[in-house]
Amino acid sequence: MNVKDKPVRSIRYDDKSRQVWVLDQRRLPHEFEELRFDNLDDAVAAISNMTVRGAPLIGVTAAFGMALACLESCGDNELEAAARKLAATRPTAVNLVWATNRMLSSLLALPKEKRLEKAWECAAEIYGEELEMSRQIGVHGAEIIRVLAKRLDRPIRILTHCNAGWLATVDYGTATAPIYEAWGEGIGLEVFADETRPRLQGTLTAWELSEHGIKTTLITDNAGGLLMRKGLVDMVITGADRIARNGDVANKIGTYLKALAAADNSVPFYVAAPSSTFDRKTAGGEDIVIEERCDEEVRWVSGLNREGKPEEVAITGAGVGILNPGFDVTPARLVTAFITESGVFTPAELQKF
Amino acid sequence: MNVKDKPVRSIRYDDKSRQVWVLDQRRLPHEFEELRFDNLDDAVAAISNMTVRGAPLIGVTAAFGMALACLESCGDNELEAAARKLAATRPTAVNLVWATNRMLSSLLALPKEKRLEKAWECAAEIYGEELEMSRQIGVHGAEIIRVLAKRLDRPIRILTHCNAGWLATVDYGTATAPIYEAWGEGIGLEVFADETRPRLQGTLTAWELSEHGIKTTLITDNAGGLLMRKGLVDMVITGADRIARNGDVANKIGTYLKALAAADNSVPFYVAAPSSTFDRKTAGGEDIVIEERCDEEVRWVSGLNREGKPEEVAITGAGVGILNPGFDVTPARLVTAFITESGVFTPAELQKF
Repeated sequence: MNVKDKPVRSIRYDDKSRQVWVLDQRRLPHEFEELRFDNLDDAVAAISNMTVRGAPLIGVTAAFGMALACLESCGDNELEAAARKLAATRPTAVNLVWATNRMLSSLLALPKEKRLEKAWECAAEIYGEELEMSRQIGVHGAEIIRVLAKRLDRPIRILTHCNAGWLATVDYGTATAPIYEAWGEGIGLEVFADETRPRLQGTLTAWELSEHGIKTTLITDNAGGLLMRKGLVDMVITGADRIARNGDVANKIGTYLKALAAADNSVPFYVAAPSSTFDRKTAGGEDIVIEERCDEEVRWVSGLNREGKPEEVAITGAGVGILNPGFDVTPARLVTAFITESGVFTPAELQKF
Repeated sequence: MNVKDKPVRSIRYDDKSRQVWVLDQRRLPHEFEELRFDNLDDAVAAISNMTVRGAPLIGVTAAFGMALACLESCGDNELEAAARKLAATRPTAVNLVWATNRMLSSLLALPKEKRLEKAWECAAEIYGEELEMSRQIGVHGAEIIRVLAKRLDRPIRILTHCNAGWLATVDYGTATAPIYEAWGEGIGLEVFADETRPRLQGTLTAWELSEHGIKTTLITDNAGGLLMRKGLVDMVITGADRIARNGDVANKIGTYLKALAAADNSVPFYVAAPSSTFDRKTAGGEDIVIEERCDEEVRWVSGLNREGKPEEVAITGAGVGILNPGFDVTPARLVTAFITESGVFTPAELQKF
């Protein structure tokens, strides 16, 4: 998508010079800077220190990490060590293990001298598939927005939570893909982005949509209910971290509250996610373990101070306890439909697979 | 209530030396400091710059503002000017006008030489009534907690939103009054305090409850829904800014989302408020105008930086639009009961008055 009127992606590569660049997401939305990876360790560091974030993007970054490892050595031991190193960066990221395993098995099947070229081909393949997956979610979701815009005969107001934007994928995003696609087709729309405490990833969403030229309004996580009651929201689209067999959705903390408000005000609530997010092994939301994250994420808020310098402030003293669950579960009954790369499915349709 | 093991009130006075002190709430929860008022202008400034906040406390402060005005002059013109000056500080605060009018009419009815003494008597009366009102809310609400604790036979976990604590009143608070009262009676309980963006008044709630010795956990506004789904919340108590004739409740933005989660999980949802909050002239929530507050409240977050100094950081750049509604409306159907100084009433019982 565009930043300052130029097309940008969260990760890009040059397979001639065999170089990879990523956006430094730790500095967004305040500063925009690309970092170049020179070797495997750069990729490892970028994943662990959250220079890159978002499950799809982490997978693609890991694939290029393997390709960079081949620049140093294509031996079995070295490649296996590289895969282990990458997989250890974010222990719960499913895409990460999937991408490194795919790279590893395709490389180990070849003689050593063919591995370097294959590695760059295979990483580019994963990159391309990821991009196409987001684009297809966009195409299917845009159809929903188009129908609604036709029926209401006015611009559509969409609320989203957290950042399931192009920053979390190669491009388009997941929750944002229908928005970018519809907007690109000339359908009138605007977006409300929940700021999404504690980490304020909603500020990334507001930044990326605004940079692309889409009217976006940042709101506190408390505000969405009122907006829905006042009829200011036509639909909600969020991403998902994991979707259970019965259609229960684990996503960023606070998603459930917005789903309740949507149901209470007859606002359709969509979850946009690639089919890799559907976890057939998990029966329902009650089987999903909710990660408890550290207090410091709640206590410290990052931004730019009055001098425009990055700074953190503590909102509360050490004497007050903090609880910081990272995700919540939205029951399937509150989900209107899932927007996937293969089409749109209601929770009931999901059961039939 | 207690701070560092000593009893403290948000405002106190000495009618011999005719002095008034208030806590500087702008510096809480990070710094604890009392300010002395020397004259009317000090009281006017404290209300307008939010050194004091919370409708009940503002009313009491205004009453003492009138008493301080009498130290300078007890003439009709001077007292009327003082009342006008105080009333203009926060145009929407009903208690403010009520308190200054009461002071004014009781003073103007007397000969000039009796006004000074009467002013301090009358301000002390308003102070005492306010204190008793909170205490009675506490007594009636504590009964609900006691019954629940007996039934569940374990400590009760209470969620609250924003700060309707002793800091917003003379003492006890409104939403917190039942908590302080029950805790004082030895009933086991703990509290989850929503941080309450944008202004983070929940950090004040967490501070005041923790200082009094009550186990309190600060959570983001996003987290309450998950906690209720996991069965970690036994009841919700919030305050109210205004309650319509049909029982719809205008309160701090985000209250509605918590009420939805409470209803979805069969958690009782209580609104604690003095009867002055019940507005018989407003038929329902749709008639309450929601104040839109400035962008800057959302954009800037205050706290202490890594050096322990007060600082503000901007969470988003100027290119992103912001919408900042201050309140939302919780429909009466989501309210279990109202806890008032005169007793506990369901929304249906309210209709009968």
